[in-house]
Amino acid sequence: MKKLKRSARLVEMTQYLLFRPHSLIPLTTFAERYNSAKSSISEDLAIIKEVFEEEGLGELHTLAGAAGGVKFSPKVPKETSLKFIQNLCLQLQQPERILPGGYLYMSDIMGQPQYLNEIGKTFASAFAGRDIDVIMTVETKGIPLAYATATYMNLPVVVVRRDSRVTEGSAVSINYVSGSNKRIQTMSLARRALKEESKVLIIDDFMHVGGTIHGMMDLLAEFKATVQGVGVFMESCEVEEHLVDQYVSLARLYGVDSKTKQITVEPGNYFDAKKGES
Amino acid sequence: MKKLKRSARLVEMTQYLLFRPHSLIPLTTFAERYNSAKSSISEDLAIIKEVFEEEGLGELHTLAGAAGGVKFSPKVPKETSLKFIQNLCLQLQQPERILPGGYLYMSDIMGQPQYLNEIGKTFASAFAGRDIDVIMTVETKGIPLAYATATYMNLPVVVVRRDSRVTEGSAVSINYVSGSNKRIQTMSLARRALKEESKVLIIDDFMHVGGTIHGMMDLLAEFKATVQGVGVFMESCEVEEHLVDQYVSLARLYGVDSKTKQITVEPGNYFDAKKGES
Repeated sequence: MKKLKRSARLVEMTQYLLFRPHSLIPLTTFAERYNSAKSSISEDLAIIKEVFEEEGLGELHTLAGAAGGVKFSPKVPKETSLKFIQNLCLQLQQPERILPGGYLYMSDIMGQPQYLNEIGKTFASAFAGRDIDVIMTVETKGIPLAYATATYMNLPVVVVRRDSRVTEGSAVSINYVSGSNKRIQTMSLARRALKEESKVLIIDDFMHVGGTIHGMMDLLAEFKATVQGVGVFMESCEVEEHLVDQYVSLARLYGVDSKTKQITVEPGNYFDAKKGES
Repeated sequence: MKKLKRSARLVEMTQYLLFRPHSLIPLTTFAERYNSAKSSISEDLAIIKEVFEEEGLGELHTLAGAAGGVKFSPKVPKETSLKFIQNLCLQLQQPERILPGGYLYMSDIMGQPQYLNEIGKTFASAFAGRDIDVIMTVETKGIPLAYATATYMNLPVVVVRRDSRVTEGSAVSINYVSGSNKRIQTMSLARRALKEESKVLIIDDFMHVGGTIHGMMDLLAEFKATVQGVGVFMESCEVEEHLVDQYVSLARLYGVDSKTKQITVEPGNYFDAKKGES
């Protein structure tokens, strides 16, 4: 690449880092890429670091030494996420969202990439620092959330299927009781989809009693995997007790009253004072 | 915001634009944000534009006048996409990907956010300039691709369900014949998920005969929607004729031979000389 001026180099490095979260980039990569001295690259990184931190985009870690380099960890401040979630809560309380059976319509919100990116960034911040190999979810509505989170964490995603007609070779199936309607259901994961002893972050859109997430945990035990965290976009607070006791929620549903057309949604346990996990 | 130096401003504007594709941003937004003169902002944008175009990230369009501003359209050059797809084709030809029944295992590749981003960017480039309101896909494997594309096009996604137990109010269901096994199947979409007369881009992971995509088109007709484009990651070339005749494919599967362990995958019609759609 031709020698770039500092101004062009800053633009180039900013996009390069943003698109490669959690990847260690040796300073020599930049130095060669721009035909510049390492000292200039270090000065550029200092400018980028300051803006990223001030803007709440994330952290830029510089590792010294031969194996060193720079790594961008997306991280959004809790107050920024809270403002975003409070706005979502208002939208989720619109009476026209009430569906027959007391369900809450939120597919339109989950269909907006901009919202998903914010949610993904928030989960990535909530679980930053944990040792995770892979993100797992179950079809269908958890999938976009899992991928949005995976993008910011630079991790692969595995999707558990809700039936056993998996066309991916030998699979492990388990039965579980869906909490809301007490029906016995099946979920499956292809053997080759997950390495044994993987460290897994479970992401899903909604937790009622927690039967589905509990099922995923049982399934993971079959793969000798360990659960490093559970993140749900919304938890139902209409149940007495959840089957899962360690999780991060971004929103809480207190009730959908079909009669009075009242829906109550509030920020989740991630925003509770003192603890990010309940 | 405090007055920023040009160097910091460039980093800030770069990330601001990258995270807001296809959004018109008035120059006054930047001028106020950085407490800078519009002339300085224009100079900054010229630098960013040059780097974005040289790097193959996309185009920066500046619209003059009172309603003017700047808009970033992600667009990746075809040669860059081709190199990426050629690499994927090599990976997809690994003999251990052959599944019972002659299926091809590609969930691991579809589980990598980095790959999905490249695919999404490629679809966004293939369909740039078309008038599209919404991206549609069918569960399950098309979902990550649809969202990756939607992120780069700044469009919402609707997901068609493969059954009729949709808990989202009144829904439209249609029957369709899945081409590969000739079975009659059902797909549904909630009435409220899609506005009538929407302009739709269909995205899916795999097209065999095209029965599923043809089904989606039938479903769209029920919503008086128009199909503005069809994009599939991989098309099967083992069939004599597809039920859909206008589509963009990124890869072609010529055959999975369980006996000789031979898989043949080549770049799709998007990379054909002269035409991007066949």
